[in-house]
Amino acid sequence: MSWEDNVRKVVPYTPGEQPKIKNIIKLNTNENPYPPAPEVEEVLKNLTVDDFRKYPDPTCDELVTAVADFYKVDKENVFVGVGSDDVLAMAFLTFFNSKDPEKKVLFPDITYSFYDVWADLFRIPFEQVSLKEDFTINPEDYYKENAGVVIANPNAPTGVLLPLEQIEEIVKRNPDVVVIVDEAYVDFGGESALPLIDKYENLLVVQTFSKSRSMAGMRIGYAFGSKKIIKYLLDAKFSFNSYTMNMPTLSLGAAAIRDRAYFEECREKVIATRERIKPLLSELGFTFGDSKTNFIFAKHEKMHGKDIFAYLRQNGIIVRRFDLPRIDEYLRISIGTDEEMDRLISVLKEFL
Amino acid sequence: MSWEDNVRKVVPYTPGEQPKIKNIIKLNTNENPYPPAPEVEEVLKNLTVDDFRKYPDPTCDELVTAVADFYKVDKENVFVGVGSDDVLAMAFLTFFNSKDPEKKVLFPDITYSFYDVWADLFRIPFEQVSLKEDFTINPEDYYKENAGVVIANPNAPTGVLLPLEQIEEIVKRNPDVVVIVDEAYVDFGGESALPLIDKYENLLVVQTFSKSRSMAGMRIGYAFGSKKIIKYLLDAKFSFNSYTMNMPTLSLGAAAIRDRAYFEECREKVIATRERIKPLLSELGFTFGDSKTNFIFAKHEKMHGKDIFAYLRQNGIIVRRFDLPRIDEYLRISIGTDEEMDRLISVLKEFL
Repeated sequence: MSWEDNVRKVVPYTPGEQPKIKNIIKLNTNENPYPPAPEVEEVLKNLTVDDFRKYPDPTCDELVTAVADFYKVDKENVFVGVGSDDVLAMAFLTFFNSKDPEKKVLFPDITYSFYDVWADLFRIPFEQVSLKEDFTINPEDYYKENAGVVIANPNAPTGVLLPLEQIEEIVKRNPDVVVIVDEAYVDFGGESALPLIDKYENLLVVQTFSKSRSMAGMRIGYAFGSKKIIKYLLDAKFSFNSYTMNMPTLSLGAAAIRDRAYFEECREKVIATRERIKPLLSELGFTFGDSKTNFIFAKHEKMHGKDIFAYLRQNGIIVRRFDLPRIDEYLRISIGTDEEMDRLISVLKEFL
Repeated sequence: MSWEDNVRKVVPYTPGEQPKIKNIIKLNTNENPYPPAPEVEEVLKNLTVDDFRKYPDPTCDELVTAVADFYKVDKENVFVGVGSDDVLAMAFLTFFNSKDPEKKVLFPDITYSFYDVWADLFRIPFEQVSLKEDFTINPEDYYKENAGVVIANPNAPTGVLLPLEQIEEIVKRNPDVVVIVDEAYVDFGGESALPLIDKYENLLVVQTFSKSRSMAGMRIGYAFGSKKIIKYLLDAKFSFNSYTMNMPTLSLGAAAIRDRAYFEECREKVIATRERIKPLLSELGFTFGDSKTNFIFAKHEKMHGKDIFAYLRQNGIIVRRFDLPRIDEYLRISIGTDEEMDRLISVLKEFL
């Protein structure tokens, strides 16, 4: 007997690289190429160090209010966490506790690769449901008995969007479990399931400041749901850590979300760049689905993703590759500025 | 069958009040009355909003290095989290997984009231071991078979310190489990168990920036342990959330810990105020143990804590009270500035 026998042993998720090299073109973690809303700078200037002495507001009222106002919901419909990863981790812990080990939590075989890590961490039985050949979801696969459902929509790393009616059908067919819709990328062309929270008590819609709000560095995620589901999530959160969001985050986050015009402008720029780049990648021999995200998940007709990845890296461009079944030939390329994407295209041209 | 049947239901911890009223004397959550180290202000001034776009360093290298340097340990001996609450929650999840439900995690009956909340959240069997009448720990109570040990030292809310030899004896007698020593208040007169980490692989020493570093608002906690125990904790953390510490926290936290002279100065001021106040409280009829923390846990010979609490509140002074067995008559009074404590004494004089 050793203390190590009592340790919860896990294989952790590997995040995308955050290189310290300067002047690199970073297209590997789906960050936004544009800065946060201008008001964030104003709020930053007015932060006073003496305020750091005191604990932050545990209810996160300023941030929750800003999110609720932007999305026109009540504060009791909103939960905030340390990035959508924290929100999702708490949701797995809170909602996926079936007493029947035969019932499994369902999510696609190709999706955000943190889902199976959370399930493993909390010892939640799960089943990875195969996407179709074209990486689309077959909603009927989620109508069987289960212990919970998680759908990233648009899906990552594929970029493929499931129409809202099909999301609704999955939620409707699963009244006995919580259905999580992870909408990290929804602002780049998806349709949010948010309006459904009034209709389905068991639906949790998760979003983030990391992509469309240009605030990956601040770690802010949020979820919408019925007042009942949010209350359960808050109870678990307050059983884990009273103060998850630090003081600067509350006011900087609120400032980042209030500016609707700036938000629209940035996401339209990202979408425009993405659509401009699509035909250029096609011409170079890449194939990919109709991405509704701030990245393109592409495979080349002749070259393996591994080789393209290495060449780009040598030339100062980092993209993301997953050494996983069915997708190991693919590259996930974040949408940067127009200049960054032009550089990408020209380096690819050299190589191919 | 309903989705609610799968919910992990918990009774959350209730944090101390963070009132929005201005000009209140806040002696309820053991914050430091002095601002963070001067370099924090410099770093804050130089933060650039555009950096918020990108994910922070998941390894938290700048902050981990600063902590390791200050305490003269290797980086691999250091873990950082979103306050010591986050560190402790992850430690409970990671280390208290006995397969034998008869074996229980042990901690005192009067201690930080989050321990039983974490145990409940993760469904960890536990036993609350009675403190002696004078609120001291009997080390022998922790020599029996168990699934883990947690000792706050100095203890909260009692303020009582267990000598380091007795901590070592508890660690030595429990090689089959992890022993967590929660040293949130150690800088105000305790002796840290840090030097023991080289000798005992199963020891985890937890500290925080919230008290002696004046950074409660930034949410930074840390732990020291053998490289092996820290690696297990990191694996669990990276299975929960890749990026727990946001970008400003990493550099502001590093700045807060580098200034040893300022740190010594602040903690000496707090200790001096505490020692000056002790006889004044005694004169007023309060009894209390020999606090080695930045608070005094006191009971009045005639008046119930509830009534004193209410009177102080009416007069703009907030202290903390716990409606719990054995301690419901007590008040936990944080050590503020000399001016704040003088005001406290004069309001108490009026009342008593």
